[in-house]
Amino acid sequence: MFMPFTYKHDVQIEFGPGKTKDIAESVKAENAGKAMLVIDKDLRKLHIADEICAALTENNIAYCIFDDFTPNPSVLSVDSCAKQIRAEHCEIIIAIGGGSSMDVGKGAAVIATNEGGIMDYMYLRKDNAKVPEHPLLPVIAVPTTSGTGSEVSECIVLIDTDNIKDVMYSSILLPKYAYVDPELTYKMPASICANTGLDVLGHALEAYIATLENIMADLFAKEAIKLTFQYLPKAVSGDKEARIYMALASMYAGIAQSKNGCVLPHAVSCPLSASYGVPHGLGVGVAQIPNIEYTRDVCAEQYKQILDYIDPLAHEVPADEAADGLIEKIKTLFTAVGVDMKLDIGAVDKAVITKMSREALLEIDIEGSPRQPVTQEDVEAFYYKMLKL
Amino acid sequence: MFMPFTYKHDVQIEFGPGKTKDIAESVKAENAGKAMLVIDKDLRKLHIADEICAALTENNIAYCIFDDFTPNPSVLSVDSCAKQIRAEHCEIIIAIGGGSSMDVGKGAAVIATNEGGIMDYMYLRKDNAKVPEHPLLPVIAVPTTSGTGSEVSECIVLIDTDNIKDVMYSSILLPKYAYVDPELTYKMPASICANTGLDVLGHALEAYIATLENIMADLFAKEAIKLTFQYLPKAVSGDKEARIYMALASMYAGIAQSKNGCVLPHAVSCPLSASYGVPHGLGVGVAQIPNIEYTRDVCAEQYKQILDYIDPLAHEVPADEAADGLIEKIKTLFTAVGVDMKLDIGAVDKAVITKMSREALLEIDIEGSPRQPVTQEDVEAFYYKMLKL
Ligand SMILES: [Fe+2]
Ligand SMILES: [Fe+2]
Repeated sequence: MFMPFTYKHDVQIEFGPGKTKDIAESVKAENAGKAMLVIDKDLRKLHIADEICAALTENNIAYCIFDDFTPNPSVLSVDSCAKQIRAEHCEIIIAIGGGSSMDVGKGAAVIATNEGGIMDYMYLRKDNAKVPEHPLLPVIAVPTTSGTGSEVSECIVLIDTDNIKDVMYSSILLPKYAYVDPELTYKMPASICANTGLDVLGHALEAYIATLENIMADLFAKEAIKLTFQYLPKAVSGDKEARIYMALASMYAGIAQSKNGCVLPHAVSCPLSASYGVPHGLGVGVAQIPNIEYTRDVCAEQYKQILDYIDPLAHEVPADEAADGLIEKIKTLFTAVGVDMKLDIGAVDKAVITKMSREALLEIDIEGSPRQPVTQEDVEAFYYKMLKL
Repeated sequence: MFMPFTYKHDVQIEFGPGKTKDIAESVKAENAGKAMLVIDKDLRKLHIADEICAALTENNIAYCIFDDFTPNPSVLSVDSCAKQIRAEHCEIIIAIGGGSSMDVGKGAAVIATNEGGIMDYMYLRKDNAKVPEHPLLPVIAVPTTSGTGSEVSECIVLIDTDNIKDVMYSSILLPKYAYVDPELTYKMPASICANTGLDVLGHALEAYIATLENIMADLFAKEAIKLTFQYLPKAVSGDKEARIYMALASMYAGIAQSKNGCVLPHAVSCPLSASYGVPHGLGVGVAQIPNIEYTRDVCAEQYKQILDYIDPLAHEVPADEAADGLIEKIKTLFTAVGVDMKLDIGAVDKAVITKMSREALLEIDIEGSPRQPVTQEDVEAFYYKMLKL
């Protein structure tokens, strides 16, 4: 039975080392006046955006900067960015950084031209969520890590005023331009490179098995998985070519994730990040093997396809053993990038695991799991596997 | 050395059996009034568009029909279609058929809102070619064969007033919607299925080695090659599932071809079609092995990648032998689909081959060849290999 699909992905991808030098051209192509640069304070200190700013100035493009937000940004940061955009009459948004900067920029593009606050438009509002009435400001997304894929995704993740993670999904959130310039990732520390790389692996593996199935997006998922196994260890060691390919893998996985969604690892990692500060990609990465074990029967065919794609010697492996082959490869990858297979978040008792499991079950990613129903016990089992207890 | 790339492909793909029932939704989404259906007379006789027409009527969408064109349509057909679109105040074009219908529809979308004739905008006008000033009418492209990929391509091919093949390349030619409904191909005769399937193989193989390199488009090229080897024989036998996958392969190859272009097989097949009525895909197909032989040294790496992708047992084949492996597979494919490896166009002497080679050398596809320079002798050698003499 062939699954019909719709595929539309109206973003202009500009990929390659040095590509950000051309951003001014896209600003001009949009006939935009003043630009709002959204960039976090740490990146400013590292002078990551200096060349982009110089190129804007050289092309007589005025700009101002918004940097008043934190990692895991809040809906209030988005609203305040949008307010500044209106006050300064900016006509285009250039969001430079990891997922936080890009999500603030993408969210501000909604509120700059539409009424209310970004929270009014988000998932947890359910049927009461507003729908943007006016066209958004164009966004140029410029990733500086290789992980979130937000530059090519149709969603944003924010912390709402009740300190709960919320999301907004809509094709209108897709940036107009994704400038993926691997040079911006060359200075990324090894640990961030490893953690964000595991996020890439998660987006791709999870998108490939999610119930939402888009056969075109699956092509990108498989390639992202292959590239991650091939290049992440070298990228963590600082190899520039490997970082180029991880930037590509991140972008591919972002497309796959945006089209097909994620599953349990993204759900169980959220409480770990929120309550214990576990880096997003690390939590996601450690949850991959438990998820393959959880879905190995319902997704045997998919795991076989993935293994065949990444390993030319795998054609002899029977379908019901492909999951084991993939698990072995993930273990080897963790060792190669120097990440422990278990998270140490200190002493946790059953009550904590029960609480985190309840929170994880509220995540949208639960819906996409190919194994259903997902029970409280199922999620708790994930944590017992993931944590050093 | 990593090749930077730009990727933008703003078409909404609606793929799957029965998808064309939803075309009215897209007409409404465009807020379009009357629609112009471009469809050739033979397809009308086969009632291929009856369901689409019924769905339009059911949704109170008025439409008229343009069918005054032939295979290998002329620029005059395009201009006359555009004239009728203006006279009837149509606001959207629905082009149903093979490459001919879609290219007439896509061309008419230019002239319906811009001055002059389509010939003024085409490649052979060189520096004097006009550039469209006004936005084109939206086009919904609906392929009924699995070959040209015109539903997702940024070019059109027409015969000019001097009876010479000419092309127009521009991102604005990309249809707004591609409704790829494999059901429309179920009645396609075996010979057309085989010939158009070989065109798919050509688009994908040629795009993969063309000098224009887009790494994202290459993903689609490889998948199209794999699908064609896997499904074309069964599709020719009439198997419906195989025809679904050939529709997918055609669409993928169309993306690849649109981004990377084609090479010598497309150039040498043109004179054969123009002077001897050889079906486009057949000429292209028969030229594949000569082209692999012609480029096997400069493209050894690419042929190895292709072979690895389509054959899990190929990892042991050394790079310099991958071309042979691919050639063997093409020979097997030709046998399986019942097509002869050599074309019989009757008695041809050296003068004819010289003339066709001169014509082929004028084709735009020559530019993209990875082996340069392409000489008159090189092209003549293609014909000696391709023809029963
Ligand atoms: Fe993630
Ligand atoms: Fe073709």
